[in-house]
Amino acid sequence: MIAYGVLREGGRSRVAARVEGGVLDLAAGLGDVFAAPSINPFMARGPDFWRETHARVRELDGPLLEPEALELRLPFEVADYVDFFSSLHHATNMGRMFRPGSEPLFPNWRQLPVGYHGRAGTVVPSGTPVVRPCGQRRPPGAEEPTFGPSVRLDIELELGFVVGVPSELAAPVPLGRALDHVFGVVLLNDWSARDLQAWEYQPLGPFLGKSFATSVGDWVVPLTELEDRRVPAAPQEPEPLPYLREEPWAYDVPLEVELNGAVVARTTSRHLYWSIAQQVAHLTSGGATLRTGDLLASGTISGPERDTRGSLIELSWNGEEPIELPGGETRSFLEDGDAVVLRGEGLGEVRGRIEPARC
Amino acid sequence: MIAYGVLREGGRSRVAARVEGGVLDLAAGLGDVFAAPSINPFMARGPDFWRETHARVRELDGPLLEPEALELRLPFEVADYVDFFSSLHHATNMGRMFRPGSEPLFPNWRQLPVGYHGRAGTVVPSGTPVVRPCGQRRPPGAEEPTFGPSVRLDIELELGFVVGVPSELAAPVPLGRALDHVFGVVLLNDWSARDLQAWEYQPLGPFLGKSFATSVGDWVVPLTELEDRRVPAAPQEPEPLPYLREEPWAYDVPLEVELNGAVVARTTSRHLYWSIAQQVAHLTSGGATLRTGDLLASGTISGPERDTRGSLIELSWNGEEPIELPGGETRSFLEDGDAVVLRGEGLGEVRGRIEPARC
Repeated sequence: MIAYGVLREGGRSRVAARVEGGVLDLAAGLGDVFAAPSINPFMARGPDFWRETHARVRELDGPLLEPEALELRLPFEVADYVDFFSSLHHATNMGRMFRPGSEPLFPNWRQLPVGYHGRAGTVVPSGTPVVRPCGQRRPPGAEEPTFGPSVRLDIELELGFVVGVPSELAAPVPLGRALDHVFGVVLLNDWSARDLQAWEYQPLGPFLGKSFATSVGDWVVPLTELEDRRVPAAPQEPEPLPYLREEPWAYDVPLEVELNGAVVARTTSRHLYWSIAQQVAHLTSGGATLRTGDLLASGTISGPERDTRGSLIELSWNGEEPIELPGGETRSFLEDGDAVVLRGEGLGEVRGRIEPARC
Repeated sequence: MIAYGVLREGGRSRVAARVEGGVLDLAAGLGDVFAAPSINPFMARGPDFWRETHARVRELDGPLLEPEALELRLPFEVADYVDFFSSLHHATNMGRMFRPGSEPLFPNWRQLPVGYHGRAGTVVPSGTPVVRPCGQRRPPGAEEPTFGPSVRLDIELELGFVVGVPSELAAPVPLGRALDHVFGVVLLNDWSARDLQAWEYQPLGPFLGKSFATSVGDWVVPLTELEDRRVPAAPQEPEPLPYLREEPWAYDVPLEVELNGAVVARTTSRHLYWSIAQQVAHLTSGGATLRTGDLLASGTISGPERDTRGSLIELSWNGEEPIELPGGETRSFLEDGDAVVLRGEGLGEVRGRIEPARC
């Protein structure tokens, strides 16, 4: 499966392709648009150029570089970052934990892909250390908040879709054209401080609880490489409004969460309820534009069984059922020094280790 | 009051200064950092260079251009856009309208500057036509949503603070250093589709109801030019946590809202409860970085009296008390063809006219 990233050598960055057996320096073989510090100029060229490039990469006879020896950079420059909430099981689990006794899903959830804007400036490349964030939280039973290190630091296993072709202001992208704008997919860990989030989020949504770091993988896999992973998905009920109506489908990409060397969850992106095409059609339906580098994340991907959940808060059921790790340790949330690796078949991995808070 | 913007002539953009009597082309007089399509390179240089530039601008003897004859562009390239909710009267009014019978403010409101991320890609320059957004809304009393043009299109009168000097990941900016990072202020209209917002916002906050357009003025006024507008503000109660604790203050900038030629509200930014310094300290307290071009908006600015409110939903009290315009017309929300001009003393104006929906 071909994927694109950015490598740095001798003070200069350029676009590279990950192919079977190694990595190809594209600036050396394919020309100027690849002599860039991000894949954005390449992504902006559109689907015909993408397909042409994939074909040339397959034929390229350049020297194969060892991925382990390379200094890899953030593969794309992030324009706007939108985080959706498109996994039915994840949304249901969160509703059950936070609003026990009520209907777990808000009435809008099955009518539109719920989402919000995240912080583009703190999207960081795989391997960037994650410093435990400080912030305000209100401890259980307390009247007043306190300021200090988050004590409920979590991960979120997600796919990030990366926009290549921009759109025009006030010109919605119809569902049937949505994928022409999307270049590819990257693995994504939306680190989350649940205690900060719980205190701050009313009424305007998550903010600093999710603004300290969002890690993405080194390689963006073009959508065209995932064609054979497209599978039919469960019916959407109620049937969406016409601008969101399509035959339900998803990418079936096997995913896993590793914590301190032990795999604690295995799932697949086929559990997503809303497709990337529906997300694009919805996002632009009100007239918002797409820009090259827009990052549209799926939201946490969880399946129906306990060990298919993509966040610790779900895996430990809000801390009530800690995860058991080999060697007798348990975890409800992340501790300092913990190392997390997310993996996606064909997508690669995204890594991060927790460093102590600095407040 | 000096202000900075970007003018375009002969296919090239460069930085300009608005001074008494006209506009100066700075690329001609002050050098390379001003031969740029945005003020970002200038803003990134930091407070010493800013002060030095203001002094040189005051002495500059270049030809004065007529502002009316110039093609002005978006003055800065927006990195992340954060919209705060820092006016006590606005937050209280919204709580009263949307949660009648409950405490109008959530318990976090007086403890931290509540905010959320907006869409940076749809920040547009003054004068850009605003096409009425389409989207999902649930009409009053209906069970199911419908898709169509927003019927509750509104304005929000705000100040936008523009970041010049970036900060480092996981390195909070203390309150006392916050203003060293902020270059200046721009007038801002955060157009809002209240019906879309009301249906979509739970549980992750506003999204498409505020993503179709955010208009900013042509000129960014450096904070140093507003020094003599700094006034003491009412005490903050309860006293904020130490990282947000300072002598309460605000900028006293007179503001007005004009709708179809009639001034419908007059207010001032001294009504803001949280200062820009507190917003910066809070935003970075969890380790989030600042980037050059970050736009930190105040949220709608409303005063205590009816005609000092900065949005139509407040002025018309959710449509129950329509605003009377000269000639006998009334408005609760915006109609197609309506023209809005926001003005701020020394800041200039920001204009927009509503075009019909395209769905």
